[in-house]
Amino acid sequence: MAKVADRYFLADPWKVIERGFDPAYARVSESVFSLSNETLGVRGYFDEGGAVDSLRGSYVNGVYEREELPKSYRGIVDQSHFMIPVADWLKTGISLDGETLDLGAVRFEEFVRELDMRTGTLTRSFVWHTKTDKQLRLTFLRFTDMRYGERAYQRIVFEPLNFSGPVELTSGIGFDTEHEGRSACFWNVTRRSPDACAIQARTLSSGQEVYAAALISVPGAYMEDERTVFLHAVLPLTEGTPLSVDKRVTVVFNGMEGDKLWQIGQAALSQLECASLDEALAAQEAYWAEHWRISDVEINAPGESGSEEQQGIRFCSFQMAQTYNGGSVRHNIGAKGLTGEAYNGHAFWDTEACCLPFYLFTNPRAARSLLMFRYNTLPQALNRAKMLDCEGACYPVATLNGDEACSLWQHASLQFQPSTAVAYGIWHYALVTGDEAFVRDYGAEMLLQIARFLVSRAAKDPLTGEYGFFGVMGPDEFHMMVNNNAYTNYMGKRSLAYAADVIESMKTETPELFRILQIKTELREEEVSFWREVADRMALPATEEGLIEQHDGYFRLPHIDIHAIPVAEFPLYNHWSYDRIYRTDMIKQPDVLMFLYLYNSSFSLKEKRINYEFYEPRTIHESSLSPAIHSILAAELGRMDEACDFFGFATRLDLDNYNRNTREGLHTTSIAMAWVNIVYGFAGLRSDGGCLRFAPRLPSRWKRLRFSLTWQGRVLEVDMNREQTRFTLKQGEPMEALIYGKLCDIGAEGLNVPVM
Amino acid sequence: MAKVADRYFLADPWKVIERGFDPAYARVSESVFSLSNETLGVRGYFDEGGAVDSLRGSYVNGVYEREELPKSYRGIVDQSHFMIPVADWLKTGISLDGETLDLGAVRFEEFVRELDMRTGTLTRSFVWHTKTDKQLRLTFLRFTDMRYGERAYQRIVFEPLNFSGPVELTSGIGFDTEHEGRSACFWNVTRRSPDACAIQARTLSSGQEVYAAALISVPGAYMEDERTVFLHAVLPLTEGTPLSVDKRVTVVFNGMEGDKLWQIGQAALSQLECASLDEALAAQEAYWAEHWRISDVEINAPGESGSEEQQGIRFCSFQMAQTYNGGSVRHNIGAKGLTGEAYNGHAFWDTEACCLPFYLFTNPRAARSLLMFRYNTLPQALNRAKMLDCEGACYPVATLNGDEACSLWQHASLQFQPSTAVAYGIWHYALVTGDEAFVRDYGAEMLLQIARFLVSRAAKDPLTGEYGFFGVMGPDEFHMMVNNNAYTNYMGKRSLAYAADVIESMKTETPELFRILQIKTELREEEVSFWREVADRMALPATEEGLIEQHDGYFRLPHIDIHAIPVAEFPLYNHWSYDRIYRTDMIKQPDVLMFLYLYNSSFSLKEKRINYEFYEPRTIHESSLSPAIHSILAAELGRMDEACDFFGFATRLDLDNYNRNTREGLHTTSIAMAWVNIVYGFAGLRSDGGCLRFAPRLPSRWKRLRFSLTWQGRVLEVDMNREQTRFTLKQGEPMEALIYGKLCDIGAEGLNVPVM
Repeated sequence: MAKVADRYFLADPWKVIERGFDPAYARVSESVFSLSNETLGVRGYFDEGGAVDSLRGSYVNGVYEREELPKSYRGIVDQSHFMIPVADWLKTGISLDGETLDLGAVRFEEFVRELDMRTGTLTRSFVWHTKTDKQLRLTFLRFTDMRYGERAYQRIVFEPLNFSGPVELTSGIGFDTEHEGRSACFWNVTRRSPDACAIQARTLSSGQEVYAAALISVPGAYMEDERTVFLHAVLPLTEGTPLSVDKRVTVVFNGMEGDKLWQIGQAALSQLECASLDEALAAQEAYWAEHWRISDVEINAPGESGSEEQQGIRFCSFQMAQTYNGGSVRHNIGAKGLTGEAYNGHAFWDTEACCLPFYLFTNPRAARSLLMFRYNTLPQALNRAKMLDCEGACYPVATLNGDEACSLWQHASLQFQPSTAVAYGIWHYALVTGDEAFVRDYGAEMLLQIARFLVSRAAKDPLTGEYGFFGVMGPDEFHMMVNNNAYTNYMGKRSLAYAADVIESMKTETPELFRILQIKTELREEEVSFWREVADRMALPATEEGLIEQHDGYFRLPHIDIHAIPVAEFPLYNHWSYDRIYRTDMIKQPDVLMFLYLYNSSFSLKEKRINYEFYEPRTIHESSLSPAIHSILAAELGRMDEACDFFGFATRLDLDNYNRNTREGLHTTSIAMAWVNIVYGFAGLRSDGGCLRFAPRLPSRWKRLRFSLTWQGRVLEVDMNREQTRFTLKQGEPMEALIYGKLCDIGAEGLNVPVM
Repeated sequence: MAKVADRYFLADPWKVIERGFDPAYARVSESVFSLSNETLGVRGYFDEGGAVDSLRGSYVNGVYEREELPKSYRGIVDQSHFMIPVADWLKTGISLDGETLDLGAVRFEEFVRELDMRTGTLTRSFVWHTKTDKQLRLTFLRFTDMRYGERAYQRIVFEPLNFSGPVELTSGIGFDTEHEGRSACFWNVTRRSPDACAIQARTLSSGQEVYAAALISVPGAYMEDERTVFLHAVLPLTEGTPLSVDKRVTVVFNGMEGDKLWQIGQAALSQLECASLDEALAAQEAYWAEHWRISDVEINAPGESGSEEQQGIRFCSFQMAQTYNGGSVRHNIGAKGLTGEAYNGHAFWDTEACCLPFYLFTNPRAARSLLMFRYNTLPQALNRAKMLDCEGACYPVATLNGDEACSLWQHASLQFQPSTAVAYGIWHYALVTGDEAFVRDYGAEMLLQIARFLVSRAAKDPLTGEYGFFGVMGPDEFHMMVNNNAYTNYMGKRSLAYAADVIESMKTETPELFRILQIKTELREEEVSFWREVADRMALPATEEGLIEQHDGYFRLPHIDIHAIPVAEFPLYNHWSYDRIYRTDMIKQPDVLMFLYLYNSSFSLKEKRINYEFYEPRTIHESSLSPAIHSILAAELGRMDEACDFFGFATRLDLDNYNRNTREGLHTTSIAMAWVNIVYGFAGLRSDGGCLRFAPRLPSRWKRLRFSLTWQGRVLEVDMNREQTRFTLKQGEPMEALIYGKLCDIGAEGLNVPVM
């Protein structure tokens, strides 16, 4: 099962560089060179298209189509939705002496493509040798504006090296990209401007409408075809003199439609005129500088692998910050962000389980917005619970808009990780940010409805009198319809207890808010005591030594030696009969270990050890979440070699195409886990208690690890080397932290703690 | 949950009579008045059609269309098939003075429809009052020829009561009936005769071709439209003189196509000329007389309910004999026979579990043919096992042609009842018929491949070292993905042991046949000893008192009081969230009790009692198989009131539309269980030992029960009254039987046994 790097890009601490173009790698490069600003996302495809393998993905967060599914049984989803390509604002055509620029066909050299993580820009340059022996250097620049979600920019620099004369340019916007998986374009153009590059289109079934327009810095004639508008210009080039064409773009999607949308769009277009591309670029640089100031991770390790890891972890941080920054509470984080159509753009419980810690410690606003997304989609979760004949709120397994979009009932009807993850997320958010107001204003209502759902779905074991969940699937998706899944039970227990805590404390501390909530939700007080009872009597069977049984009967499942499975049979879903996956003790991803990680301080080292030693050899890691959890626990157990092995390629999963499917898009939520792995694993951060805990344990090949965290209004820098760790408050009041188990003060002067 | 009769038809010992026509009941009547001869099946629809609610179903056994399903995971079916309407050979149009006969529109009286079970004919008569005040008595007769599967007959008698003059008739054959559920006609006409009523058509995707033609006894002009051919005739009627129009039909489906089929069809058509309709009718009566001679069930009970039960059980026997008589080894028995398109015409394990006993004791040739169907579809079962990453043969959950057609993976991939039922069927067939040659020639190969499948699918419990099946669904379909389902384990155990017995006895007794089989199947001798080992060490956990746990963890499932479920919530699949059905101790149909019934003599009365008492109150009987099994066991346990309650409406399930869905077709396999219920329940027949066992226990309201059985070449009449049971050999050599546990000889003189 060893995964092997598919090294292609050059290492650089702040850039991802492609020197020379390998067509076989074209889609991987497109994914890696994706840009996004949370609202607009665009893969690194060639502006001019051409005969190059490409997924021309340009997306807008929240834009999707609906699809009807066959009706089957009650509670099984019969309508789904999926992300579709939206306005292709990079649409460009260039021709010279009748020859069309197409890197799949023409002769070119000096090809370089660079993603610069200090500016959030992608540049590409090369020299085109035409059949008429003209040499034209072309440089393309693009970026999505981190401050204004609806804005994006493209610059093309034409530099004729050995001639003067005209070059033809078309530059426009198209709603013409087909969804590749469904081989269809889902757009009807509803409006176009005859004398500008502006276009509005509506999806076929979801009825969403989007306006897109561009200001292009050169004169020309406006033209259109079925689903596009574009400018046609002839550029008079002079040998040795670069000519820039700047395209400033706005893409407006705000729930409006028709004339209203058009008016808002036109206003947004005219606002673009207020700032040049260079001004926008300067602001973009400032944005990223601040990002790195408060959340950079610096790895100092010798040799090439050291610089690769440095590049890798920055790439992770960069992509997370691009994918979501909390600008909108109507969006969430798709499994592939906005970098491809795989997984339909759906967000999973990965948001809370994988991504939330990154944001909690680097961008608390984003963390809050993610939770607000769940609050805003509470009505859909209430509805979903009803469909399942339950009460309260059941959060969806997969969604773009809050509706359950997962068409596999065995997941959508049996997995409650999303609901308990929301409860956990609220709890964790409050611990890290101290934002109790959020808990009262929004969290409490979610917690209450989640608690209602949990107790309506739970049942009592007639032999033991304990509560548990029957007929569920835990995070380990290789066991379905099991009873008393340890993860589901334990997370349910903690969610219920926390919901009761919050509601009871509101009752005494903010009685007016409590009464409002009570009236709104028709809460009966005995409900809360029942949550408490179910929490207190939740089953969590374990051996005397503390080995927790993953679910009833797990210990009696036939054993399989996972290392004996031929590599060619992975991923198992593609090679094994579906049912075969479900009938051994093989585990897809951590289940018991997952909650030992999440509620780390609630379990003894001995409990963690026995469970780790039992479950680790049974886990095949067919989830990218999986190795990081094992790495973090291995580090805690002092198994640093294992911790490093599991960390492995985490920072470079996509840069080196380890899973050989980066072509489909980035593994956004896995990327988040690389950050979590470093901070929780190697700095030993734990954030599930009243104060932060650290237990720095640097991997042996690393000389230094430095990163910053935001915690309760502070910015704390942690700087680890082989001898000591220095804690420096870069912002905010002094704080306490448990370091290697000892309570320490971190004041303005900082704190040095020798390695233990 | 009490079901209530929807009484409509008149009671008669040999007929089902509808006097007066209730349009609201039209589809139920159509189902009840279905005729079939195993090959051709036709619902009791009005020949002339009209504005009457109708499912115009005319079917040919084995004719189906294919459909592609969405591709998903390996082993999940991605192609299915379904029965479609074929040649509508009853197509008729009648008009008088420009008024078209349409019982949904015209005035008529004296409507009577009768199914005569002594002749297998359906007649319908009424007097039509036209708007011109003419009165025309019309009598329609139809039957499907029990001797020649491809033949069917229609007669229309015109009797003008108050006028003389012409009436217009069109009479033809159409391949134009739409499949109602899919709202499509799946036929392309490929050939038509210009001067006769003959037509040939081909299905769109399965490419099956069917020839159909009719000889019509009156002259006229042949005409056609897109998918039909018909004769147009003007009949000169004379007041008071009946005029008959006879239509002799042949429908040929034999795997041929094109010219060859046409030639065979034309030959079949000319053969029809050899016998008149009256001659065919006489032969039909003789056929049914012999059927009733060897397999009638006579119930003598006082009052109306007595005659209703008599009618009911004869209706059951009649329908079973119509549906399948063993004429073809390429056909099986659909859940609704040939009486409707529900369940797609698919055969389930009901064939072996419900229907086989009826045929074993009334028509052993049919029983053998049903098993030959499984032998002939062994290649598909081998292929299916491969798709499930297993070895040997896995028989389909639902099929028309041997391929798995069940698109629900949770059934198709987890239920092995079909495979163990085939093994059981072979065993039971051999016991009842003594036909060991069949076992050697065909049974052994099936048993061997079933055994291979079972051991490749079984696994070892690491704690106990016992074998079992993990991740399965037993007959109780309310528990899915369970481990060590008692039914699956026990049936697997017995199937493996029987397979080993058969193979080992072949090795010593018919070594040449054994060698041929060994070479054909590449059997290694250690395989057989492994079957033995798995059988010997198969898990079947039970309490000390003998209470068998339905599957691992069943005793710890939350209890639900099934009697507290509101009637309106049944059937549960339509009203409960799908997953909700799966997480209590509620049982859909007997699982443990099922194998206590099948292998009755292998369990003590004490074991049967404790299991019956435990499982009976947990069973909701959402299967029509269910009550009969409970009735039989209740009778054995001396709980005669319960036995009678469960027997309840068994004989009249469709006659009185108890499930309110007889409109969709007859519950053919349930009908078989009514017979089983009476013979196994009230005569106490057991056939799972070396000789037959009887323990007659007449329901208290019955005076007499008399029926005949075929057993190992004999015909035995069992005649029970309140004082004694008389056993009479109507055919064959003297025999032994265990009666009330005592071994008795039944000789030519018969035997009287007092009631115990």
